[in-house]
Amino acid sequence: MALTGILRTGLVQLRVTDLEETLQHYRDRIGLYVVGNIDENRVMLKAYDEFDHHSLVLRKADKPGLDFMCFKALDEKTVNDIVHKTKDEFGFPITFEDNHPGFGRIWFITVPTGHQIGIYNQVELSENHPMIDNPHIWKDCPHGMGPACVDHALLCGPNQAETVRWFTECMGMSITEYVLNPDGQGHLCTWLSGNTRGHDVAVLSFNKPGMIHHLSFQLKNWDEIGRAADIIGRYGIKIDAGPMRHGITRGQTIYFFDPSGNRNETYAGGYEYFPDHPTRKWTADHVGEGIFYYEKELNGRFLSILT
Amino acid sequence: MALTGILRTGLVQLRVTDLEETLQHYRDRIGLYVVGNIDENRVMLKAYDEFDHHSLVLRKADKPGLDFMCFKALDEKTVNDIVHKTKDEFGFPITFEDNHPGFGRIWFITVPTGHQIGIYNQVELSENHPMIDNPHIWKDCPHGMGPACVDHALLCGPNQAETVRWFTECMGMSITEYVLNPDGQGHLCTWLSGNTRGHDVAVLSFNKPGMIHHLSFQLKNWDEIGRAADIIGRYGIKIDAGPMRHGITRGQTIYFFDPSGNRNETYAGGYEYFPDHPTRKWTADHVGEGIFYYEKELNGRFLSILT
Amino acid sequence: MALTGILRTGLVQLRVTDLEETLQHYRDRIGLYVVGNIDENRVMLKAYDEFDHHSLVLRKADKPGLDFMCFKALDEKTVNDIVHKTKDEFGFPITFEDNHPGFGRIWFITVPTGHQIGIYNQVELSENHPMIDNPHIWKDCPHGMGPACVDHALLCGPNQAETVRWFTECMGMSITEYVLNPDGQGHLCTWLSGNTRGHDVAVLSFNKPGMIHHLSFQLKNWDEIGRAADIIGRYGIKIDAGPMRHGITRGQTIYFFDPSGNRNETYAGGYEYFPDHPTRKWTADHVGEGIFYYEKELNGRFLSILT
Amino acid sequence: MALTGILRTGLVQLRVTDLEETLQHYRDRIGLYVVGNIDENRVMLKAYDEFDHHSLVLRKADKPGLDFMCFKALDEKTVNDIVHKTKDEFGFPITFEDNHPGFGRIWFITVPTGHQIGIYNQVELSENHPMIDNPHIWKDCPHGMGPACVDHALLCGPNQAETVRWFTECMGMSITEYVLNPDGQGHLCTWLSGNTRGHDVAVLSFNKPGMIHHLSFQLKNWDEIGRAADIIGRYGIKIDAGPMRHGITRGQTIYFFDPSGNRNETYAGGYEYFPDHPTRKWTADHVGEGIFYYEKELNGRFLSILT
Repeated sequence: MALTGILRTGLVQLRVTDLEETLQHYRDRIGLYVVGNIDENRVMLKAYDEFDHHSLVLRKADKPGLDFMCFKALDEKTVNDIVHKTKDEFGFPITFEDNHPGFGRIWFITVPTGHQIGIYNQVELSENHPMIDNPHIWKDCPHGMGPACVDHALLCGPNQAETVRWFTECMGMSITEYVLNPDGQGHLCTWLSGNTRGHDVAVLSFNKPGMIHHLSFQLKNWDEIGRAADIIGRYGIKIDAGPMRHGITRGQTIYFFDPSGNRNETYAGGYEYFPDHPTRKWTADHVGEGIFYYEKELNGRFLSILT
Repeated sequence: MALTGILRTGLVQLRVTDLEETLQHYRDRIGLYVVGNIDENRVMLKAYDEFDHHSLVLRKADKPGLDFMCFKALDEKTVNDIVHKTKDEFGFPITFEDNHPGFGRIWFITVPTGHQIGIYNQVELSENHPMIDNPHIWKDCPHGMGPACVDHALLCGPNQAETVRWFTECMGMSITEYVLNPDGQGHLCTWLSGNTRGHDVAVLSFNKPGMIHHLSFQLKNWDEIGRAADIIGRYGIKIDAGPMRHGITRGQTIYFFDPSGNRNETYAGGYEYFPDHPTRKWTADHVGEGIFYYEKELNGRFLSILT
Repeated sequence: MALTGILRTGLVQLRVTDLEETLQHYRDRIGLYVVGNIDENRVMLKAYDEFDHHSLVLRKADKPGLDFMCFKALDEKTVNDIVHKTKDEFGFPITFEDNHPGFGRIWFITVPTGHQIGIYNQVELSENHPMIDNPHIWKDCPHGMGPACVDHALLCGPNQAETVRWFTECMGMSITEYVLNPDGQGHLCTWLSGNTRGHDVAVLSFNKPGMIHHLSFQLKNWDEIGRAADIIGRYGIKIDAGPMRHGITRGQTIYFFDPSGNRNETYAGGYEYFPDHPTRKWTADHVGEGIFYYEKELNGRFLSILT
Repeated sequence: MALTGILRTGLVQLRVTDLEETLQHYRDRIGLYVVGNIDENRVMLKAYDEFDHHSLVLRKADKPGLDFMCFKALDEKTVNDIVHKTKDEFGFPITFEDNHPGFGRIWFITVPTGHQIGIYNQVELSENHPMIDNPHIWKDCPHGMGPACVDHALLCGPNQAETVRWFTECMGMSITEYVLNPDGQGHLCTWLSGNTRGHDVAVLSFNKPGMIHHLSFQLKNWDEIGRAADIIGRYGIKIDAGPMRHGITRGQTIYFFDPSGNRNETYAGGYEYFPDHPTRKWTADHVGEGIFYYEKELNGRFLSILT
């Protein structure tokens, strides 16, 4: 296997304050499929091009935010190695759960930025998976914004460097790009990839732990970004920024908010990353164009609205 | 590292009968950059988004075809492991060369289908590489069809199964899709990936060894496919098929010929492959839609024109 | 008014042999909206971006083909002028009908190529019309191939020159392009526009009267052409040619067949025509690239399958 | 002729403060072709898909802004009718000039908003015109943002209603959309079309005469909008807003500034307008989404930066 270890983001649980309205947003506007309910407060969803049981859970709660973000590993050995290395070399809090429908055991690690990061290998094939035998490109025409899959998240919290060190040394990810702090010491933000994406996760230095800037859904190109924007305009979804391009990762993007206040991203394009590529470096004075490649400056909401 | 072992196709050498006219095709129409001459019969080229020294060599020869196709490995250990395993377990002919400008040692293996497959790890950074510090999305606007990189090739020859076995067991690639022979025994064609592409190489069963069906250049989306087609139309490039979509890999594509008769492909889209995905299976009666998803049947040239 | 006289194709009636299956094709695959039934053999449809009552009628019949093609005039004066000029100067057979639901009187003229061409001015606003007050870009996201409107048709028959003369002198259309006959005498085919489209109708010289080559639906760009092709591939719609570009009109196109055998086109792009533009001229030896800009030669079906 | 009277915007002259730098912007970034110099202070340019001699003049001056905007008429009769009607019924100041290279007489009318509007019919075919005989889709691949032509302008000044009345009653244009003033009395802004574009000119009520909000260049689709944005990002062109869509006209757009401070627009899409379409009406409280369909509110620059 040339692609080994951690494969990709596979399961994310978001807190939402209005389950019904927020479910409509993810189902009808973003275009995910409802897999079913775990209980009265939790709904499972997936995108059309994902094979696994589900990839997103919305959980009714008092305030929005991220419960956890889980990565799928290629095999049990990867899971075990990460669990042991985390315990032995990092000493981060670690637990496991066996009660996620369709999933085997998920190990949860509390990283220094305050996030719950999950690792698992076992998950059932979804009933509504992409075709396998003489497959069509899709069974039913994708609806809404039509994302192929959950793509990545931007996590925010203190001790950014320690969380990044764990993602690289323990999870085996590569740093694809980083922005230096204004004093040139250490990273303000780091982008990390375990495959050929420009990032599977990014970690932003922030004074409050466990925060999420955005959860991103994968579109395929700029035209799909435009169609997503039309849906945003048509249905009055609150937009944050875009359609635009990031200088960092080169991704084409829109930021917008779900009805509970979580920031979503539809993300497309970006370069194809390989671990022999040089790490791209950004100085703090260029962060504006790094994030907002066209506008060249961050809008006021970018660093102030997190959940 | 989550992406390990063999990374991607990194260097291909094609035979061309008219070097000047064929160079114009790859430089001005496809849109590659000339890196320089190795000698009077060989020209080095690269695409705008490749970091390495060069990725394509055109060699003047009496007849068109493929001299060799080389894969870049993440590290020396991968190269050594493949070399030893090839010698010890496969017994295929193996040599090395140290005289490829910009490249370290390249090991060449003659696989059962009759192709020279190269493996290397060392290669210099190109002078004309993508930006690294506060990078722009490109230094100069891509020209011609504007491919980001060399993508893959379809190799044809006898003993298909043995070559595929070597790509999986020795090179560590995954089979993403295959088409069964009409009798349901063995594969007519197999698609193999060492990263998240739908394929890095495909191997088609054919009675003559060492043949190439096409060399493919990576575009980013259907719109770029359309622009490539406009260039094909404008400059009278001989088209074979497309613009269209493959059912297999879902890639969007055009097949056309260089002035020496080698078939090129511009390829975009396709799904994002992960090694935990089920292998897609095609029966021989569906091969038409597997290749020509819109037309549903192969054209007469598909299996008759190879170089 | 700068745009006067004949505005555009407004109503077309096609014969279909299997009403139910063909209705599904136009409704679910092409993506038209059913307006209602005229009687048990006739169904009215319209596209999402048309204001008028309906634009297409499918009529159950023994064989496929075109019953009539009608143009909307800006005002009654235009209709009257055309009616009188047709009677007085051309002497073509002319009748009228007052029983088309939602439409006022439609005048039908039998042109020398054997087609029934209708002219009208009065038609009711559709119930399902585009928004007018603080309008959204669409009320419901377009489905299927999502055409904005009926666009044009290619009519085939004898006495091509006389029908063209009537379209120019009586209907006030401009010749945007033509292909000369192989002997350089007269037109093999003529493209005519009454607005800024590359054509509203084209007339091809053919030995059998009243034939239609294709009815075309308007898409907006190459990406929509690609999505239409995906629907064609997914649902096994019989494709004729494309996705491709025409040299003539520069339109981007797919030809395919409805279940009754009528050829459809989805058409996008093309230049913006103005009547001060020079008429584009094609010689017979370039007709291949005029129609099939990428392939450069007509396929065998192009001139043999008409309804 | 179905398209009669005023055809389209044909010639615009802008004031620029730095001729050399601004010329580079229009030539290399927007992608126009230099036709030549009129004198040391004036440079003529055109877009690749325009047949006429030139369509834009940059004039070196002390401050940026619009010198004049001229419309091409189909014939001399249209010009004469407009000249006489303007004199007789409107009494606006009117003059003519015979010294515009490649153009016949241009009549200039000072409209109540303070703009110089020109009317002409005679203009020479450009040397660098689109192909006419067995034409290719373009002679040389469009460069820069690659606009097909000058498209429209948004004019700002007092007495908006009187200028609009002249555009409709004398120039024969249709009102495609308007925004009511906050008190519901009269128009804040009016969009006018003489062909099938959503607008050829728009007129915004403003307290200072002769101002221009933007000059617009026509692109063909959202993908070209994205490429234009990439050029804006790559070369540090000052962006104002977008990429986005307008609710009004449905056009897809970017606003940005030339080096002299004039606002440019690249504009694509929008509906195909016909004069039998209902006029779209916007109330003042919806003007945000009318202009910024995704953001739903005007940015601070929109009404404050005019030239």
